[in-house]
Amino acid sequence: MPKKTSGSYDYDLIVIGSGPAGQRGAVQAAKLRKHVLVIDKREFVGGVCVNAGTIPSKSFKEAVLFLSGYRQRNVYGAGYRVKSEIEMNDLTFRCNHIMQREIEVIKSQLQRNHIDVAYGQAHFVDEHTISITSTKGTEHVTAEQILIAVGAKPHRPDNVAFDGQRIFDSDDILDIKELPRELLVVGGGVIGTEYASMFAALGVNVTIVDGRKRLLGFVDEEIIETLQYHLRSMGVTLRLGEQVLKCSTRNDGQVATELKSGKIIVSDAVLFSAGRVSATEDLHLEKIGLPIDDRMRITVNENFQTQIPHIYAAGDVVGFPALASTSANQGRRAICHAYNITMSSQDIPLPYGIYSIPEISYVGMNEQELTEKEIPYETGQARYKEIARGHIIGDETGMLKVLFHRDTREVLGVHIIGESASELIHIGQAVIALKGGLRYLTDAVFNYPTLAECYKVAAYDGFNKLSRVA
Amino acid sequence: MPKKTSGSYDYDLIVIGSGPAGQRGAVQAAKLRKHVLVIDKREFVGGVCVNAGTIPSKSFKEAVLFLSGYRQRNVYGAGYRVKSEIEMNDLTFRCNHIMQREIEVIKSQLQRNHIDVAYGQAHFVDEHTISITSTKGTEHVTAEQILIAVGAKPHRPDNVAFDGQRIFDSDDILDIKELPRELLVVGGGVIGTEYASMFAALGVNVTIVDGRKRLLGFVDEEIIETLQYHLRSMGVTLRLGEQVLKCSTRNDGQVATELKSGKIIVSDAVLFSAGRVSATEDLHLEKIGLPIDDRMRITVNENFQTQIPHIYAAGDVVGFPALASTSANQGRRAICHAYNITMSSQDIPLPYGIYSIPEISYVGMNEQELTEKEIPYETGQARYKEIARGHIIGDETGMLKVLFHRDTREVLGVHIIGESASELIHIGQAVIALKGGLRYLTDAVFNYPTLAECYKVAAYDGFNKLSRVA
Repeated sequence: MPKKTSGSYDYDLIVIGSGPAGQRGAVQAAKLRKHVLVIDKREFVGGVCVNAGTIPSKSFKEAVLFLSGYRQRNVYGAGYRVKSEIEMNDLTFRCNHIMQREIEVIKSQLQRNHIDVAYGQAHFVDEHTISITSTKGTEHVTAEQILIAVGAKPHRPDNVAFDGQRIFDSDDILDIKELPRELLVVGGGVIGTEYASMFAALGVNVTIVDGRKRLLGFVDEEIIETLQYHLRSMGVTLRLGEQVLKCSTRNDGQVATELKSGKIIVSDAVLFSAGRVSATEDLHLEKIGLPIDDRMRITVNENFQTQIPHIYAAGDVVGFPALASTSANQGRRAICHAYNITMSSQDIPLPYGIYSIPEISYVGMNEQELTEKEIPYETGQARYKEIARGHIIGDETGMLKVLFHRDTREVLGVHIIGESASELIHIGQAVIALKGGLRYLTDAVFNYPTLAECYKVAAYDGFNKLSRVA
Repeated sequence: MPKKTSGSYDYDLIVIGSGPAGQRGAVQAAKLRKHVLVIDKREFVGGVCVNAGTIPSKSFKEAVLFLSGYRQRNVYGAGYRVKSEIEMNDLTFRCNHIMQREIEVIKSQLQRNHIDVAYGQAHFVDEHTISITSTKGTEHVTAEQILIAVGAKPHRPDNVAFDGQRIFDSDDILDIKELPRELLVVGGGVIGTEYASMFAALGVNVTIVDGRKRLLGFVDEEIIETLQYHLRSMGVTLRLGEQVLKCSTRNDGQVATELKSGKIIVSDAVLFSAGRVSATEDLHLEKIGLPIDDRMRITVNENFQTQIPHIYAAGDVVGFPALASTSANQGRRAICHAYNITMSSQDIPLPYGIYSIPEISYVGMNEQELTEKEIPYETGQARYKEIARGHIIGDETGMLKVLFHRDTREVLGVHIIGESASELIHIGQAVIALKGGLRYLTDAVFNYPTLAECYKVAAYDGFNKLSRVA
């Protein structure tokens, strides 16, 4: 590797992993004229996000929505299908194309920013030296600073007989050969819920098992009740508060999943998506004395700095929320800290997007958090069926909820379930961050007909409630 | 009519017309506990917006996008169709249903607010008295204040032989029996451009004639060049800077349209949508001495007050921009002024939405306006094809442009062409109104993958340009 730095290291920065956190961190450093190397153990960039996670699942969702005619059911009737016999090939053939496009976009961005890329498994040799092992052999590179952004992978416990044929994790579920008649999804987190709803929209009989009492524990309760209602009306069975003891394929090819409660669930296929573990095991972190927790996660401070000051970690490898958007932001924050760049002090809340069917997105606090903090709030609601755009697109079930402070009318949270939730949330995000207050939402003119009008309707509903409760 | 006011009039407020301006004005007054009557000359509420304008055309657009497979062309190939032979019935059968829903929503809103509704033609008798003539006879009602919100109707010049069979205006074009092979659209304003693009997406050979040198003169030039490029690539012929002399049906059933330049355009059908005139002619405004201009518009001040202080006018009847969203806002502003309610002083720019294919929306100033005002600006651009969501939905042509002040980095305008433009614009609207500046857009985390990420990409592009030009 050519040495281009003024110091005694080959690189100013080595980034291990090229997912959203790694990319963003590398680009940020490059913009500061740092000499950067990105290492990826795969033969391509993008990480799990592009290659097995976000991008394939969102591409799959788009194909599901279109081919199942889900969006048109309220328009053209519940039996409506664009394609009568939908096969997995129909649903996934676009995914590869989109993944290739994403990889090209990332590669070109790294090139434009003069970032070197090496493919191979990275191991720590010492606190400044990484060895890269590939089919071409092993080489050593050094850097002044290091960003660990190796991401995470599905947790695969021993009592589940993963085979990639009938029993899948979330990274290989889209390799399933044909649509199962019944699918059991173990784990009601983001990934499990997203895939469960997509397969349900395709007409698959889906059962979700989760140890907790509801799906997506971090999301507002009313939103999750709405989601669970819709999942059930798509035929999904929810088995909550249940533990999986064992999951294996029987002689007849069916999968039997035993629950602690004694139930046995028999299905064509199982998606096990209960938890992810950080992909740190091959890094040889023990060589530099960097500890990991029971989920293999690296602990960092608020600047994404590990206990070794010049080594940072960001993205899924540090844990929740493990979203592409937040990971990218963490990568940038880490690098800004590393090079003493003051990030703007704007206090902008993070949006969360769950690409289930129906889609969920929120920003700010939810009702349970506000109640716990004893902040006196009021709610304003709008249902998609109250506004013209809802009728036009046939989404009669969507809902937007604004939570605001009873006295100051400051907007404290926005929660949306329904079409385009993950896009619409950014209006609420700006109003919260920039302190527009509930009044902004009644005073602003919104294009007609749009779903964004829900903000105005919800704000009026909120003011009406205030005048009633005095 | 029951007298419920404390004064000497039957009503506190009479609103003539039940479109967006009338509805919003009436509801605002009702919320102030005023006794309100709404008069509509049709047998149903909603005005042109619901019954012949915004709602039917947007419902039609949604059906066009779905049935033509327009959104899927980049995904499943250009020849892709959900339905191979699309007929007008397929496209409009949803429209009636949606219109009925909207009418019900409006009726219920008026009822909930205890607003009386009368159907019949309103005439001014004197400055406080209106006669209502219907099949049931004529009655007189009086009010302290009056809001005229009668809307507008298509301009139908004598040299065009409208017949509702081959030669249509924008209120009856959707009554066309079958899809024409060729459609000539006269007038490249909002309505003409919207319908031209929808029929073009269906594979109809569309020609647009307009006297001006480009479509939609009030929109940013680069956006319109992009639109015109896309219209041409859908097979649309643009005949700009051309005047129509005469338009009539020939013996063979084809329509011949003569242009001043000597050209004759022969087509299956013509949509004449060059201008609208306010629907004031039957109001007998001469009885109260209220003047109208050459397009029958009523002149109002910034509070939507006519020269008779207790008579207001709002919505299409006062002219540009004649959008449902702005009309509703005008109705509210008029009533707030009438009852001395101080509207919030928040300075929120209006969004403009053009539901063409591709869709256009903008807020704030465009490049031409900024140049004219000698405000030093820079631009930041993002193309949908640069972001993951663009690849997933197959919109490779969309574009978002942020205009900002070179020195202060204040956002001065946002211009979008592409999928969901009219929804996405509200993020920019909030950032402009609440003074987030370009920095907000780079610092905020956006859900991934969303089209909203274009804001971040555009903001980074803007900062990059600044650093280059010093």
